[in-house]
Amino acid sequence: MAQDKLKLIPLGGLGEFGMNCMVLRWQDDIIVIDAGLMFPEEELLGVDIVVPDISYLTENRDKVRGILLTHGHEDHIGGLPWILSELNVPVYGTEFTLAYVEGKLEEHELLDDADLIEMVPGERIILGPFSVVPIRVTHSLVDCVALAIHTPVGVVLHTGDFKVDLSPPDNKPFDLHAFAELGKQGVLALLQDSTNVDRRGYTPSEKAVRPRLDEIFAQTKQKLFFSCFSSSIHRIRLAMELAHEHGRKVAVIGRSLDNSTEIAQDLGYLDPPPGLVINPGQIKDTPAHKLLVMISGTQGEPMSALSRAAVNNHKHAHIEAGDTVLLSSRVIPGNEKSIYRMIDHLERRDAEVIYDDGASGLIHVSGHGSQEELRLMINLVRPKFFIPVHGDYRHLKRHIELAVGMGVVEKTILLEDGDILEMGRDSAVKTGKVPVERVCIDSGGASTDVVEDLVIKDRRHLSEDGIILPIIAIDKRTGRVENAPEIVVRGMAIAEDGLISEAKQVVQKTLDVSSAEEKADYGVIKEKIRSDLKRYIQKNTSRRPLIMPVILEI
Amino acid sequence: MAQDKLKLIPLGGLGEFGMNCMVLRWQDDIIVIDAGLMFPEEELLGVDIVVPDISYLTENRDKVRGILLTHGHEDHIGGLPWILSELNVPVYGTEFTLAYVEGKLEEHELLDDADLIEMVPGERIILGPFSVVPIRVTHSLVDCVALAIHTPVGVVLHTGDFKVDLSPPDNKPFDLHAFAELGKQGVLALLQDSTNVDRRGYTPSEKAVRPRLDEIFAQTKQKLFFSCFSSSIHRIRLAMELAHEHGRKVAVIGRSLDNSTEIAQDLGYLDPPPGLVINPGQIKDTPAHKLLVMISGTQGEPMSALSRAAVNNHKHAHIEAGDTVLLSSRVIPGNEKSIYRMIDHLERRDAEVIYDDGASGLIHVSGHGSQEELRLMINLVRPKFFIPVHGDYRHLKRHIELAVGMGVVEKTILLEDGDILEMGRDSAVKTGKVPVERVCIDSGGASTDVVEDLVIKDRRHLSEDGIILPIIAIDKRTGRVENAPEIVVRGMAIAEDGLISEAKQVVQKTLDVSSAEEKADYGVIKEKIRSDLKRYIQKNTSRRPLIMPVILEI
Repeated sequence: MAQDKLKLIPLGGLGEFGMNCMVLRWQDDIIVIDAGLMFPEEELLGVDIVVPDISYLTENRDKVRGILLTHGHEDHIGGLPWILSELNVPVYGTEFTLAYVEGKLEEHELLDDADLIEMVPGERIILGPFSVVPIRVTHSLVDCVALAIHTPVGVVLHTGDFKVDLSPPDNKPFDLHAFAELGKQGVLALLQDSTNVDRRGYTPSEKAVRPRLDEIFAQTKQKLFFSCFSSSIHRIRLAMELAHEHGRKVAVIGRSLDNSTEIAQDLGYLDPPPGLVINPGQIKDTPAHKLLVMISGTQGEPMSALSRAAVNNHKHAHIEAGDTVLLSSRVIPGNEKSIYRMIDHLERRDAEVIYDDGASGLIHVSGHGSQEELRLMINLVRPKFFIPVHGDYRHLKRHIELAVGMGVVEKTILLEDGDILEMGRDSAVKTGKVPVERVCIDSGGASTDVVEDLVIKDRRHLSEDGIILPIIAIDKRTGRVENAPEIVVRGMAIAEDGLISEAKQVVQKTLDVSSAEEKADYGVIKEKIRSDLKRYIQKNTSRRPLIMPVILEI
Repeated sequence: MAQDKLKLIPLGGLGEFGMNCMVLRWQDDIIVIDAGLMFPEEELLGVDIVVPDISYLTENRDKVRGILLTHGHEDHIGGLPWILSELNVPVYGTEFTLAYVEGKLEEHELLDDADLIEMVPGERIILGPFSVVPIRVTHSLVDCVALAIHTPVGVVLHTGDFKVDLSPPDNKPFDLHAFAELGKQGVLALLQDSTNVDRRGYTPSEKAVRPRLDEIFAQTKQKLFFSCFSSSIHRIRLAMELAHEHGRKVAVIGRSLDNSTEIAQDLGYLDPPPGLVINPGQIKDTPAHKLLVMISGTQGEPMSALSRAAVNNHKHAHIEAGDTVLLSSRVIPGNEKSIYRMIDHLERRDAEVIYDDGASGLIHVSGHGSQEELRLMINLVRPKFFIPVHGDYRHLKRHIELAVGMGVVEKTILLEDGDILEMGRDSAVKTGKVPVERVCIDSGGASTDVVEDLVIKDRRHLSEDGIILPIIAIDKRTGRVENAPEIVVRGMAIAEDGLISEAKQVVQKTLDVSSAEEKADYGVIKEKIRSDLKRYIQKNTSRRPLIMPVILEI
């Protein structure tokens, strides 16, 4: 009997934000939708990223026909290097999404062996018993799709991340017709993004930020520093357009932003007029009022370009009294402290900081649909079964409440990671669980933008790689470091004295080259110490210990 | 010359939220306004609270005439035990404020030696050259005052924390007349609360939450769990009134809430009808729809009653499917993760959770005035000098911008902790700095509500008390603990093997009595391990090592 059922198995993203990964199986054929990563909670030390457990896939490796990507955000593609290194299957994505994937795979030297296949919205792909039609949707990123997956028991529609932006900046319209048509023909199951289920009404169009940004450009007398998520191509284009209109040159600073801008230019999503973009080295020769510096680090990430500029420790970006710093982004919950610390540093430089404090006007809009857009989609699609995806448990639960209140859905199902849902033409039943541990990965290098090298931390063998605790006593007010740093090592076989004393010097050097401001910002100084020491240890030993700086305030 | 100047020296609260403490000095007389604590950033390990550095006061101990308290919140009175143990001077506060202070001093066995003097709004207190008149203001707490301090060079007006609540629930009106009168007579300097300087408009009255809370009481079919800040006496009273109206008995759970409720009843701020309040032990005999459980822990504090109930680990509070949990409080920035973790636990119990998500109606209002109230006060008082207090650097800066835009202030001064401001009748000049290190305190016991015992952590002598790292490998999905806990000890002279192996057993026992849900919540399990191990170590040694649990996910 189960042979006639379609299995739906979420491996990630249902019960947490991030590492989205959904498996569909019909008999001996499996397809996977998205392969994301997530960033670990702070308590989880020594881990840079968390990716889905794909043991269900590796156990059925001969059955996996491919991975289909809805768009290029990290929580949808960031797990690919890890997954492909375990299971090299074809990867399907739109042109822009694949450009991001290529960069990511290249860093891990996985690109040559990868089989990347472009998807075009509206063009059908056949994968065994599955016939998949990508449908254009709008989101904060460009070239995003939902996936209509025709299966032997009916159509499963996965929205990916979306909002219904009826005036998209790239003039590529949300394909409402396709959803309406599917709804008329009958959809078995709708899997819909839950991210903004708590927000009433509609999410404003990406274009809605233009008037306020224009105003800020007009009012800024000196240098304008503009920070947004590096993948926000629409926002980057808008900033460049405004720079052009207001007679400012544009310098781009920060690796992730640089990379994104380059891809977007290559694919025609950005087309700045000749001479608009200058090199960071030319900043110093450009008058302040003629300059827009696009800089990465909206979340106060300790090693980002903007965080470093905020403590006056960036080669090209010097923020001076009277400059304006605009964070065209939201405050991601959990990042408040690092963001506000960075803002305080900027305010002390007497920069004017404009951020999403509820009183700065519309300087950012979400890329995810609010309640009315979720309802609109459910009404258009009218699925038999409704399954919320992408969210913590409470978001999934509320999304089900929202769907129940509409009267168009036959049954709602709250699935969590690992659940097996078996669907027939008229049935949807949870029948079991597959193992879904979380896979914690140590990225090896500085945890800035890039995962250089992947190592799964199997913590059962702690003693092999061990723990290193650099202990530093800092005076918060002055940033002065008292005493020499201590180093405690546990469980590293190679912990000879020479190494430890050299490690102390590495830490001392990091402290020496850091400003008092950086040292008084524990988030920043811990990350610098961790990153420098990690590099040293890995160069000089074959170990990858957990490095956990301890700051003692005195 | 400097002999004719009034010195104003903030020791805390100007450049950070918390540990408010302001010094006024005229020649050989010093008074202190407030003596608060703050909670340290997460990176600061092994420290429970941070209090102001009072070395300026201890160096001038014969000159200090007293400490004047504006109200009973921790960020205004929490540093008192520490300060009084160093410097036993008279403490002035209103009746309610002193009741809080008494409890706090009693815990530290400081009450018998303390000299607590009641202030009554409108009644003048003479302290050497200072003549101080407390003025009634409104805030989230009851019995709060601003202080008009008459000095030889003019009046310094310190607002304390306030909002202009024109319909206060206790019918004790904000004394606008007193401020207007002072303004007419002339005020040298206004020191004003900056907390909500980012918010436009007016803060709603405390009474504004009643309609929505009433609605929630009416709609709740089973048990209603109600959580608010324990000092929110107005809110507690409202909840009890609504319980009475809706035919529910009230049980109070959680030490801080219990304590606050008792004080408020003693002083007549709460007057529940006989039979309304029941003991927690009677919960099980009360029908679900007849029950209101007031429970502490709005911020998801790992050891709070509500957090424990959320993982079904509280003796009296059992949250079941269909129960409602109302968090009548705000999400304090930095606490998002622990709060949302707790909410997810509650949602998994199928409780309905109502919290400040922007879509739940007016279930909480701030106790601090918004921009229009700040402007109103400045206009009424029309001080020569305006000095913002209580806030991070950016709040102080914005508050100055707000004041500058009004045209009634002669000069604004951005003071930070440690700055010395010298004021004459027509001058206000920064002339130097006093040392303001932060004083980090290890509270000894479980870091729930009470500071049992104060030890300043002098981290120069790390080797004396040392560091203990319990290392535990946990499977996040199952909450299963792999292997026995390891213990790493550094720098404790008494680290014999017996102690370590017993410490391992202590940790093991904590793990054994914790549910899988608790173990999968790193915040909770770390705090439980830290707290149990701390108690064991302090009982069995004279040391107070830094205890830092390390969770390794496997």
